Amino acid sequence: MDYDHSFFSEKSIRVEPPSISWLMRLALDRPELISLAAGFTDNATLPLDSVKEIADRILSDPKRGQAALQYGTTLGSAELRRATADRLHRLDKDQAVSSNPDPSKTAHTHALNPDQILITQGSQQALYLTLEAITDPGDIMLVEDPTYFVFLGLLQGFGIQTHGIATDTSGIQPWKLEEKLLALEKSGELKRLKALYLVSYAQNPSGRSTTYERKKEALEILKRFESSAGHPIALIEDAAYRELEFDQEQSAPSLLTEPNDRERVFYLGTYTKPFATGMRVGFGHFPALVLDKIFNLKGLNDFGAAKFTQSIVSEAIASGIYDTHTQLLRQRYFEKASAMDEAMKEHAPENLSWEFPSGGLYIWAKLGGGATTGPESELFKRCLEEGILYIPGVYAYCSDLDRTKPDVEMRLSYGAADIPVLQSGIKRLCEAISGLESRSEH
Amino acid sequence: MDYDHSFFSEKSIRVEPPSISWLMRLALDRPELISLAAGFTDNATLPLDSVKEIADRILSDPKRGQAALQYGTTLGSAELRRATADRLHRLDKDQAVSSNPDPSKTAHTHALNPDQILITQGSQQALYLTLEAITDPGDIMLVEDPTYFVFLGLLQGFGIQTHGIATDTSGIQPWKLEEKLLALEKSGELKRLKALYLVSYAQNPSGRSTTYERKKEALEILKRFESSAGHPIALIEDAAYRELEFDQEQSAPSLLTEPNDRERVFYLGTYTKPFATGMRVGFGHFPALVLDKIFNLKGLNDFGAAKFTQSIVSEAIASGIYDTHTQLLRQRYFEKASAMDEAMKEHAPENLSWEFPSGGLYIWAKLGGGATTGPESELFKRCLEEGILYIPGVYAYCSDLDRTKPDVEMRLSYGAADIPVLQSGIKRLCEAISGLESRSEH
Repeated sequence: MDYDHSFFSEKSIRVEPPSISWLMRLALDRPELISLAAGFTDNATLPLDSVKEIADRILSDPKRGQAALQYGTTLGSAELRRATADRLHRLDKDQAVSSNPDPSKTAHTHALNPDQILITQGSQQALYLTLEAITDPGDIMLVEDPTYFVFLGLLQGFGIQTHGIATDTSGIQPWKLEEKLLALEKSGELKRLKALYLVSYAQNPSGRSTTYERKKEALEILKRFESSAGHPIALIEDAAYRELEFDQEQSAPSLLTEPNDRERVFYLGTYTKPFATGMRVGFGHFPALVLDKIFNLKGLNDFGAAKFTQSIVSEAIASGIYDTHTQLLRQRYFEKASAMDEAMKEHAPENLSWEFPSGGLYIWAKLGGGATTGPESELFKRCLEEGILYIPGVYAYCSDLDRTKPDVEMRLSYGAADIPVLQSGIKRLCEAISGLESRSEH
Repeated sequence: MDYDHSFFSEKSIRVEPPSISWLMRLALDRPELISLAAGFTDNATLPLDSVKEIADRILSDPKRGQAALQYGTTLGSAELRRATADRLHRLDKDQAVSSNPDPSKTAHTHALNPDQILITQGSQQALYLTLEAITDPGDIMLVEDPTYFVFLGLLQGFGIQTHGIATDTSGIQPWKLEEKLLALEKSGELKRLKALYLVSYAQNPSGRSTTYERKKEALEILKRFESSAGHPIALIEDAAYRELEFDQEQSAPSLLTEPNDRERVFYLGTYTKPFATGMRVGFGHFPALVLDKIFNLKGLNDFGAAKFTQSIVSEAIASGIYDTHTQLLRQRYFEKASAMDEAMKEHAPENLSWEFPSGGLYIWAKLGGGATTGPESELFKRCLEEGILYIPGVYAYCSDLDRTKPDVEMRLSYGAADIPVLQSGIKRLCEAISGLESRSEH
């Protein structure tokens, strides 16, 4: 007798392989492809010596070493949760001060509570636990247009309906959010709406950051629709790329700034991307009344993150090594983004447009003139022939019956590849685009 | 507006805090309590120097170091999956040979396929993903009487109905399993039955191991009911304590031994407990047709275990450090089990009975003469007054309307505490039991 639908769970039947898994296989099968697609981080700057030094320091001290190699707790290391609360507090305060010259308006009058922070297996697990805690199949979630495509896979797996809200260089457009909420209210669907998901810093894939004003306005709009929804509508602030914004001084404060807002905000972060991706240490700061649910689910899932990697991250933060490294990484990614940007300026035909990213690992480019970029497009095929892979923009748009998915963008990653490889990749990509044009002229 | 049931998911409303969370809080609030309750592992033998040496070795080699600190894949490190396949193969072969003098019947004619192995965040996550993949609320699962109480919390969270199957010193009683299957068939519930869960080596809490014959018979019985169920009925073999069985030479082969059986067996293991619990590296070997589902769910959950801890475990295995350490640990736990056993022999009143465990971290003791051991019992309260905590046996029994939960047992842990502490704890526990008796004589 074979395994079939009568054996598996509804969820596992719903869950599909990642939309780009065929692309990942392709890259594995043809390693000669210059991948502008991968979300991997820079290899050359991985902190081998620092981690060695830290591991040595921890394991040479019997007390600390034993604590690092013993079971931890479900919530995560108290030391790391305290450090995270302090760090977020400081980040918001610094940023509030630098963007607001009036010291009386300094943010975070109240410190953050470490007991509202839960350490996770990367920020991905914080997203998973969030959906486990607040959604049932058929619920609704709002996301940005475009958004983090892995999250769209999660939503699909959880059976959640999605709507995309338009964005611009300042982030989500609050008037579009309001429009959508009114429509949901009118159609009677508002009660199924659980949250709005924003990747608020150096967004994957657009590279844009959301201003504090826009986030705050979005939150206030959500609050206005609560009574009509019959329950709170959460704002999930995914800050995974926060510490990879190039200009930390101009970075916006988070929505944790005002204590009252914290009861509506799920703030997710990671120590992975800006330090050592092989560690997988993320976290979430959750509303107090939600934390219990997340905590119980985390207990079932794995009863707590690995103590060893948490200890390493804690020591990296305490010793200052973490800050030094994130600074180095920002510099490195800025150089790589600049190199990619320069190469694009040199080779791009007129119908290719893009913005310099505010941080992160990606340049988001848009093709004008009618050609598409999707996996079945002429351009994608030509690129493959030329040994180039990118992530088609269409994957970053949720299924939303109110619009068709734009199919004219590309996510170009400067994360993993070295500069000469990036330059050559961009040159060939641009040639492929120009080739399309000249053909269409015939 | 407050968060309430209209906001949360059905699952998160179902999930309860761990049954023993009040007990864990008690132990935290009163650190003077000699805890025979904790599932923590031995601190003194945690491999600080070995992990330091391994981390140093990996991080001093740029290529290996970069691979260890970069993202991994969802399935887990290829090196560790290969090592796991080899290791399981060898364990089964060794054990099949030692328990079966006929070399022509040597087990594992076919090697295991590393691509059916997925690395998880401890074996707990393998359990979680298994339930995610194969159960919906209302499904049925069979467990041993008694069973691993954390798994019962999982089942409750997933909304799964449970039935307990009686066990004896050889493990599950197949005739009881058959009886239950017939009853489920008769009541028309068989189609909701998804799996039987066995903790087959040095079971938590009983300390007993299941013989190969019993496991095999259980599997054959499940197969006979498949057509009536309308789908396969899986056997989940939780082998978390396998490498902590004291006598590895007498250890039973696993159900992965025969290639045909592998399509019905979910085999779960861990590198955590027998090495360094702070690492949280577990794994599952899944039927080929199930692996895809588990893989997709793992992708959503955290897209893969931390590469760094996987690299450390891989190197520990490859270098032989892992084997040396598990041997040391087995010796250590055997000494502690023996010390606890001796103390019990010295102090126990006649109405306390127990077996010497086949391995693991626990002695399972049974109280005769009518007194109970539950959290509201006289004994539990007296123990608290005496500064002793144990896990009441009642927690290790699933909800099963066909019987009442036995309430006369205790799980006594020798995992974390040092020998003098164990001795003093057992003495006081036995005094508390004797105190009950003398009072009931009045």
